[in-house]
Amino acid sequence: MDYQLLLEDIVDTLRPELGKAGQVASYIPALARVPAAQFGIALRTCDGQEAHAGDSTTPFSIQSISKLFALTLGMQAMGEKLWERIGREPSGNPFNSLVQLESEQGIPRNPFINAGAIAVTDRLVSLFDAKAHMLGLLTSLCGEPIAFDDEVAASEAATGFRNIALANFMKSFGRIDNDVGPVLDAYFHHCSIRMSCLQLARAAGYLCRDGQHPYSGEQVLTEKQARRVNALMLTCGTYDAAGEFAFRIGLPCKSGVGGGIVAVVPDKLTLCVWSPALEHSGNSLLGMKALEMFAGRTGVSVF
Amino acid sequence: MDYQLLLEDIVDTLRPELGKAGQVASYIPALARVPAAQFGIALRTCDGQEAHAGDSTTPFSIQSISKLFALTLGMQAMGEKLWERIGREPSGNPFNSLVQLESEQGIPRNPFINAGAIAVTDRLVSLFDAKAHMLGLLTSLCGEPIAFDDEVAASEAATGFRNIALANFMKSFGRIDNDVGPVLDAYFHHCSIRMSCLQLARAAGYLCRDGQHPYSGEQVLTEKQARRVNALMLTCGTYDAAGEFAFRIGLPCKSGVGGGIVAVVPDKLTLCVWSPALEHSGNSLLGMKALEMFAGRTGVSVF
Amino acid sequence: MDYQLLLEDIVDTLRPELGKAGQVASYIPALARVPAAQFGIALRTCDGQEAHAGDSTTPFSIQSISKLFALTLGMQAMGEKLWERIGREPSGNPFNSLVQLESEQGIPRNPFINAGAIAVTDRLVSLFDAKAHMLGLLTSLCGEPIAFDDEVAASEAATGFRNIALANFMKSFGRIDNDVGPVLDAYFHHCSIRMSCLQLARAAGYLCRDGQHPYSGEQVLTEKQARRVNALMLTCGTYDAAGEFAFRIGLPCKSGVGGGIVAVVPDKLTLCVWSPALEHSGNSLLGMKALEMFAGRTGVSVF
Amino acid sequence: MDYQLLLEDIVDTLRPELGKAGQVASYIPALARVPAAQFGIALRTCDGQEAHAGDSTTPFSIQSISKLFALTLGMQAMGEKLWERIGREPSGNPFNSLVQLESEQGIPRNPFINAGAIAVTDRLVSLFDAKAHMLGLLTSLCGEPIAFDDEVAASEAATGFRNIALANFMKSFGRIDNDVGPVLDAYFHHCSIRMSCLQLARAAGYLCRDGQHPYSGEQVLTEKQARRVNALMLTCGTYDAAGEFAFRIGLPCKSGVGGGIVAVVPDKLTLCVWSPALEHSGNSLLGMKALEMFAGRTGVSVF
Repeated sequence: MDYQLLLEDIVDTLRPELGKAGQVASYIPALARVPAAQFGIALRTCDGQEAHAGDSTTPFSIQSISKLFALTLGMQAMGEKLWERIGREPSGNPFNSLVQLESEQGIPRNPFINAGAIAVTDRLVSLFDAKAHMLGLLTSLCGEPIAFDDEVAASEAATGFRNIALANFMKSFGRIDNDVGPVLDAYFHHCSIRMSCLQLARAAGYLCRDGQHPYSGEQVLTEKQARRVNALMLTCGTYDAAGEFAFRIGLPCKSGVGGGIVAVVPDKLTLCVWSPALEHSGNSLLGMKALEMFAGRTGVSVF
Repeated sequence: MDYQLLLEDIVDTLRPELGKAGQVASYIPALARVPAAQFGIALRTCDGQEAHAGDSTTPFSIQSISKLFALTLGMQAMGEKLWERIGREPSGNPFNSLVQLESEQGIPRNPFINAGAIAVTDRLVSLFDAKAHMLGLLTSLCGEPIAFDDEVAASEAATGFRNIALANFMKSFGRIDNDVGPVLDAYFHHCSIRMSCLQLARAAGYLCRDGQHPYSGEQVLTEKQARRVNALMLTCGTYDAAGEFAFRIGLPCKSGVGGGIVAVVPDKLTLCVWSPALEHSGNSLLGMKALEMFAGRTGVSVF
Repeated sequence: MDYQLLLEDIVDTLRPELGKAGQVASYIPALARVPAAQFGIALRTCDGQEAHAGDSTTPFSIQSISKLFALTLGMQAMGEKLWERIGREPSGNPFNSLVQLESEQGIPRNPFINAGAIAVTDRLVSLFDAKAHMLGLLTSLCGEPIAFDDEVAASEAATGFRNIALANFMKSFGRIDNDVGPVLDAYFHHCSIRMSCLQLARAAGYLCRDGQHPYSGEQVLTEKQARRVNALMLTCGTYDAAGEFAFRIGLPCKSGVGGGIVAVVPDKLTLCVWSPALEHSGNSLLGMKALEMFAGRTGVSVF
Repeated sequence: MDYQLLLEDIVDTLRPELGKAGQVASYIPALARVPAAQFGIALRTCDGQEAHAGDSTTPFSIQSISKLFALTLGMQAMGEKLWERIGREPSGNPFNSLVQLESEQGIPRNPFINAGAIAVTDRLVSLFDAKAHMLGLLTSLCGEPIAFDDEVAASEAATGFRNIALANFMKSFGRIDNDVGPVLDAYFHHCSIRMSCLQLARAAGYLCRDGQHPYSGEQVLTEKQARRVNALMLTCGTYDAAGEFAFRIGLPCKSGVGGGIVAVVPDKLTLCVWSPALEHSGNSLLGMKALEMFAGRTGVSVF
């Protein structure tokens, strides 16, 4: 299949819809001012072919897509012990809900809701410099330097009362070991990372390669771990719309409110789409359409 | 791969654990008296090969596995309109919970929790004789007569206060069109159906064949519909353990409290395991182990 | 104090507002067709003085005010044992909510929410003919025959899906001993009773007389029990507005969606107001205003 | 009535139970090391008579009893506007629950749960030095200097993750105007105040005197406001046991986890009991017994 042609065709098909519907995330200025009318798409196959089209090299705020890499760092460092404080089930509640934490004694449902990613970050902070390790992992996976957006991190920290509440709530149940401050500092910095579609398609490459680094071939995760991350992405990776993604797209995905979505076609390729305008579930509106088109044209649904 | 040898090996490996752990469902006498120390496994490939081992031809109460076939009948009859009253997202709550229904105005989260299956059954009851159509579908799919267990259906009706509450609660929101009585009568009869592992592996065959009937080749569902059923099974098919199934097994599954689990390997085969003793989530304890072994040995995880 | 003059003045003051705001309960035809522009008020002092004004002798559907008398029958018959299956705390949720029942294993918060009154009625049905005993109690307390409104009872039964759900849900937790049918039949009949303000002011008389029957002087309840019923009325008697009633009126009250409200001034008098149009909490809009005026003019707040 | 004799008799009656049951609050060291076997009781009548017995002059941590005085400061300063961000209904949930806040957009149910008192404190912090004003009010009401316990305040701040979560959660809904830090600093200091039974019986005196200062006679609150505070105490003042207090004691009460309970007999007297061991609801075990004995012997229930 000529992926380059396909991606260009998707870009052409969606161009008339650019900026027409959906809402750019507006809770911090740095996100609110991103022009809505942008769309990029990029993929990298298991064996290293790449294709990309549209605004595929424009960096954007990866936001919750960072949860994928925080989880990867946690699984690398702790293996099965990571799961002692974090569940693996869909939550059925909004990504920033506190309700379930109260009835479940501060144990978050999965690592892809905010509470879960904060709990993962707490474990990382216990082990090493979580901010440096995150940049190190991504820089290695992309083959080029990746950096935080300090303005975004500062804005998240200044307005992130819900996340501060989540962290303190878990700490009140004894589920956070470190001071809340450094944990949230790392968490907010992870969310602020800027990457392009092409960089993310490369960085996620180990997830379609049985855990192997896209360039060096070393094991980023074991095969089993890589498949498990894919399973978590499919069941929990796209906020309240995981069922809808599985139903319509049928691929493991992880989205962020910056408008990016990373998708994995196991044993074949990784894919990243980006368009800043979100639909009501917090996922990129055109990103979802593009993934549905891609899955429909290629027949790559895991189902 | 020699599936017959593999299934026999799984049976041999699990035999020492038979009846050692887990609890047989005990809420009605007909289920409570099923001997725990039974285990069966059967599969049928896309192209019609079959393999089975253990108690693979012993009929058991399919219980919630019937929700898979009720959904199939609903999708056949109503297409997209079915989704006007039923969601497609994981619920994050127990299968028989009423809590979410209250905050979501009587619309069940998905067709595999009790409320969702009752809502599907209501739609069927509006269209035709839901009991007869269910037996008709299963008899056609298996190539041999399938029947209700009237004792089980009567016991479910006599003790099913939670389900009666669910149906009336949805009706109080205007989400059930028919009288609650006939809807629950059909629902309880569907749950009471007795089938063996081999029969279920055959009956589910259309789910690995792009919707094609396992014998006649006619479309039971469209290809897209069949893939969507698989997606729903993976995200919502195993009560509160959907994340755990995806994580450990990586296949679309639908379980029942009778101890059966149907699994789909898309484009390859359908599989059914059965062992009556359940773990805390209501899924068959040895069934889950068997599926994990099968997925591990064959590498068929969708991830 | 000249109560007759006061009540007439309240009627005159509120007359311009009759039928101007609020909504008559519309969930069954027999309630929906009650003309909104009616208002009655009546009181009876401990020592037998009576005063009444406006539509004070017009019978109306007492609805949830019957919960007061069902509780009285239960306390008479069972004493402290009644509280084994029913709590005494405010619920913080709507009167017909199922949510709290799920987390509290089918034990209703108090006898004045629907679930609690159904649970009380179940205990009555175990002991005697609950319908006949209710009419017997009210006929004795009023000194004249009191009857059910069969049309209302039938309508409640035909449309009471939420109450049927509540009863079955409690039964699923083993909290209802009898078949749900007869329990709800009694409950719906109790709600259908028709009485006037004057009759209710008389019937509730024992609550301001240390439990003594308003005419015969025999103990309907013990002094302690009567004071406890008053306490329950104040904390739980007016749906979600118990705090608002305590804050603005300061008297134990029990309201019904027929627009009636019974209030107790301990050791002084009982009072009943009625006006069919309800505010958002389900309490009579003008009834609340009248009670606030009465409490303001007489200084009878218990606080 | 000879109150001195009565209080001494209550002390004698309860002495054998001292330290036998209940648990001293243990979440911070300064509370955990308070000896359980202490009991004090004190009252002051409208006209200035005082009686006290047992450990009635031993200072203890007033904890949530401070919410009564914070509310008083708020009503003094803001009148009806105070209620724009705080409800007046019982919550039906634990005092430190976050669940209801989520579904009710950050507006706490009433000023006596933690979230409500934090919201009141935020309003105070906007207006003046909330710590100084609190000490000023109490010093004036008692006629002698009242002070914070800095060790307790520091411990509360160091371990109060749940309260930090509550404050940030409300701020995420835009319901807290000030920085969370100073608001919680004031809140934790208010909770840390040390007073004796006798001091609290005096300080609460305005609540039984139509709002008049116990010594100076000036209006601390208007008559209406004072009665409304009493109403709130009765419906919401004792955590999850408001119904139980109303049922068994029948007086407006406000309790704290330090083991103190302030009670009001409107138009007659104010009363304070203290014993550190708590029952499961967080209220003083012997304090509740003492209040029940007092109400039984004197017949002062408002019902």
